[in-house]
Amino acid sequence: LKLFDYFRSSAAYRVRIALNFKGLAAERAYVHLRKGEQMSVEYLARNPQGLIPALETDEHAVLTQSLAIIEWLEETYPQPALLPRAALDRARVRAIALSIACDIHPIDNLRVLNYLTRTLGVTDAAKDAWYEHWCTLGLGALETQLARESATGRFCHGDQPTLADVCLVPQLANARRVSIDVASYPTLARIESVCIALPAFADAAPAKQADAE
Amino acid sequence: LKLFDYFRSSAAYRVRIALNFKGLAAERAYVHLRKGEQMSVEYLARNPQGLIPALETDEHAVLTQSLAIIEWLEETYPQPALLPRAALDRARVRAIALSIACDIHPIDNLRVLNYLTRTLGVTDAAKDAWYEHWCTLGLGALETQLARESATGRFCHGDQPTLADVCLVPQLANARRVSIDVASYPTLARIESVCIALPAFADAAPAKQADAE
Repeated sequence: LKLFDYFRSSAAYRVRIALNFKGLAAERAYVHLRKGEQMSVEYLARNPQGLIPALETDEHAVLTQSLAIIEWLEETYPQPALLPRAALDRARVRAIALSIACDIHPIDNLRVLNYLTRTLGVTDAAKDAWYEHWCTLGLGALETQLARESATGRFCHGDQPTLADVCLVPQLANARRVSIDVASYPTLARIESVCIALPAFADAAPAKQADAE
Repeated sequence: LKLFDYFRSSAAYRVRIALNFKGLAAERAYVHLRKGEQMSVEYLARNPQGLIPALETDEHAVLTQSLAIIEWLEETYPQPALLPRAALDRARVRAIALSIACDIHPIDNLRVLNYLTRTLGVTDAAKDAWYEHWCTLGLGALETQLARESATGRFCHGDQPTLADVCLVPQLANARRVSIDVASYPTLARIESVCIALPAFADAAPAKQADAE
């Protein structure tokens, strides 16, 4: 396995957690997003979307989209599992993951922030307010949901880590980077603290990566 | 089954296609997005995210996030299938679906467009350019991918409809609504024409819904 990675990409961070959790080693190819390396001819030949991460299998198939990659890992290396067994439980875990991966992260992605400042001429303060708006809106809804649902346990779903936690931890790391007070989401903060005590999560953190700056 | 639906929501449109494809009847509850009904106390009690769609099961569980709902439908009513069998094929289908559901649709969602005009004071022309930018960027990458990959068939993946087509058709309908020339994506347009000839897709179209305006 070979992961096309960037330390600060929270989508790549999800895949790093999943690989660690399943005990899988993956070679790294670093693609520097701030230098625009995701738009190189070489990288676009692998992933025309120009987004990180991508995972190359040992048979040289290239998988893209972090959640599709993690579902593939789950189907190919089922144990330890990142999805529960029952369909309703799987639906809840996937919905939590997607509420982050669809409705928070892409709106606050680097390319969107660049469009705001470079194309729309928005000030840095307005750009930061944008980031905070979408991040707090999504995290607030997630806090409400997790705090009231009995299916929430030590982790987002029950007492084992799932795909939901794999998405939550990188999003909270992002939130902290823009000075959002994570403690104001007590359920999310509690779950995060349980997650980051696990090596699979801790070792995937941006600061621990070989390309970290 | 009861679908919380809005004719123009392309995420709800995906679930309508999947229900039709699997021959499942679902009662409807209409939530008028432009009137803000998704933010009513009653709806937020079901889905704290305030997003459409949601699907209530016969046991009164509420499922959210269109792709999580469709994966649940797939696991609960496996035939006819919307995902292929082999893990690599499933990963390709999910990646195509996610490239739309994560990286095009949420950035052009109504609430984001409202923030641009109401909070950032962006002109209508700049808002339209924003929509077109993200939509054409994503569709262009998808056209490149589908045109060159041999796994593409009459549909996005092979010769049967999959989750990828379920996401593609509503996104192209959205593109057309803002006057994007879909014909400039010949592979996508060809697949769309094959899809909308099928009743499952045709009957899910916004104009065919009881709440259409």
